[in-house]
Amino acid sequence: MKKFINAVDQVENQMIQGMVKAYPKHLRKLDCGNVVVRAEKKEGKVALISGGGSGHEPAHGGFVGEGMLDAAVAGAVFTSPTPDQILEGIKAIATDKGVLMVVKNYTGDVMNFEMAAEMAEMEGITVKHVVTNDDVAVDGSLYTVGRRGVAGTVFVHKIAGALAETGADLDAVQSVAQKVIDNVRTMGAAIAPCTVPAAGKPGFELNEDEMEVGIGIHGEPGTHKESMRTADEVADLLLDKILADIDYSGSEVAVMINGSGATPLMELFIINNHVADVLAEKGIKVYRTLVGEYMTSIEMQGFSISLLKLDDQMKELLDAKADTPAWKE
Amino acid sequence: MKKFINAVDQVENQMIQGMVKAYPKHLRKLDCGNVVVRAEKKEGKVALISGGGSGHEPAHGGFVGEGMLDAAVAGAVFTSPTPDQILEGIKAIATDKGVLMVVKNYTGDVMNFEMAAEMAEMEGITVKHVVTNDDVAVDGSLYTVGRRGVAGTVFVHKIAGALAETGADLDAVQSVAQKVIDNVRTMGAAIAPCTVPAAGKPGFELNEDEMEVGIGIHGEPGTHKESMRTADEVADLLLDKILADIDYSGSEVAVMINGSGATPLMELFIINNHVADVLAEKGIKVYRTLVGEYMTSIEMQGFSISLLKLDDQMKELLDAKADTPAWKE
Repeated sequence: MKKFINAVDQVENQMIQGMVKAYPKHLRKLDCGNVVVRAEKKEGKVALISGGGSGHEPAHGGFVGEGMLDAAVAGAVFTSPTPDQILEGIKAIATDKGVLMVVKNYTGDVMNFEMAAEMAEMEGITVKHVVTNDDVAVDGSLYTVGRRGVAGTVFVHKIAGALAETGADLDAVQSVAQKVIDNVRTMGAAIAPCTVPAAGKPGFELNEDEMEVGIGIHGEPGTHKESMRTADEVADLLLDKILADIDYSGSEVAVMINGSGATPLMELFIINNHVADVLAEKGIKVYRTLVGEYMTSIEMQGFSISLLKLDDQMKELLDAKADTPAWKE
Repeated sequence: MKKFINAVDQVENQMIQGMVKAYPKHLRKLDCGNVVVRAEKKEGKVALISGGGSGHEPAHGGFVGEGMLDAAVAGAVFTSPTPDQILEGIKAIATDKGVLMVVKNYTGDVMNFEMAAEMAEMEGITVKHVVTNDDVAVDGSLYTVGRRGVAGTVFVHKIAGALAETGADLDAVQSVAQKVIDNVRTMGAAIAPCTVPAAGKPGFELNEDEMEVGIGIHGEPGTHKESMRTADEVADLLLDKILADIDYSGSEVAVMINGSGATPLMELFIINNHVADVLAEKGIKVYRTLVGEYMTSIEMQGFSISLLKLDDQMKELLDAKADTPAWKE
């Protein structure tokens, strides 16, 4: 294992500290652990919290700030944060308007966030949550029941975060978050695995002519291996499954071409070139495109495509002001 | 070679098209080749053009837009754009106030940009240029005479671009660009090479316990190999050379921890954690920090540290409004 790290047991802590030191105007780290909150708490709004294992940077700490999240909780790499840790985050950001948790659908995350919510409710804080499940690759896996929550989660942060910023109430913010979840689908593929520092070896192996299709975001293998193909063919493979899952015809969409950590922008743009053409051909109008790293798997070489079917409310909120380390409008 | 591409001879073209399709409100591609300009030309300002070989994404097309560049010219991967191509870019953006070329110090780039400027002058366009040379690793190499221009170039785009946007004249914009060049230094290291698509094999080889120190941005080996060390030790190695080159003591700086393409943000933040501590210890005040991919080498696993010594003018321009695909303020 060859990485720019100091010690396996310091990875998460030093990373979070390095992030907060890079963006002191945006972020503050709680003393109690790897929880990042806005440098200045904003009252009078629903407070949004998200998080999960580390290794998905810039998610989730990079999306803390005006117009997006109020707190991000970072567990060990690819490991759910503890209920205590999540509770500290909730308590640090809670307002009279309540707290919305945006949880990716993985068994550990869902369990720990729900437990934290119960503990917070006992302290008089109103907490609701949504569970993202945008990955069309698998319906149930080793890690979760139902579809997994992956890169589409970032659209939930952006759109629900923008509505929360206007002072909307908890039901409204939860409702728009759920609308995003209902309308976003994602699928990914990879040509090289990543190595969890504490494991010291890659999560799977691939031959030179193979790729993993249907990857999640925790370094696990995909649904199956296939022979390596051209970028356009891989994009078609993923798009076909996404487009079969929701009827996008005639609609406007936001597209996210999300790099898994080690895929150069060059390749992500080549993929977008084809995705844009295919959508145009099918009469699906692209309203916005995001190309880059939003929800990574450390240094996995891969990408995912997300399509979010938009309505006027989501379009407006997607474009609303945001000022976070990783998303600015 | 395993990449998400379609054909080696289509890499640059499909990438540029995919970039422009992702950001149609910001970018337009000229019909004549891989030249990206602002979607809407702005008159009444000095026009800024930069570029070089492809493979450095988001540089340079990602920095075209309000407050930064007016055009970016993309040659083949790690290959200088041709004078004709640069000339087309200059002609597309030229205004009454003249054109400033921001050129990285590589023999091919300098020669071709200068030739294009001569051709443009013959057509009545006033063109000046600056040459960036921030890399303290080498003074002269296979590729250039004098120090190489690397990631620090992006500070020149940002600061000179911001001044140009105010309507300042060509001498003033050239002068502030040169001030940035005089005050920025960079050095990098890598733990894995990248593969130029047309070459089909990595630019160098490294054992599991080795790293390349003093890498450039064209996939070439660094100045020498060293045994792999901790992130903090590698950062110290680079910082020591940077800090020995300019007297930063007592000054305010902008820090850029620039990923080479395949280095996860996790590692860049761990590096920043130490860089911030070392600078604090030395009494050098960090005014701004940028962590991410600004000037890459396709999928090289490496990073560079840049330190820009700031004055009040540079601070104001660094923070001025920018609206480009890869840098927003």
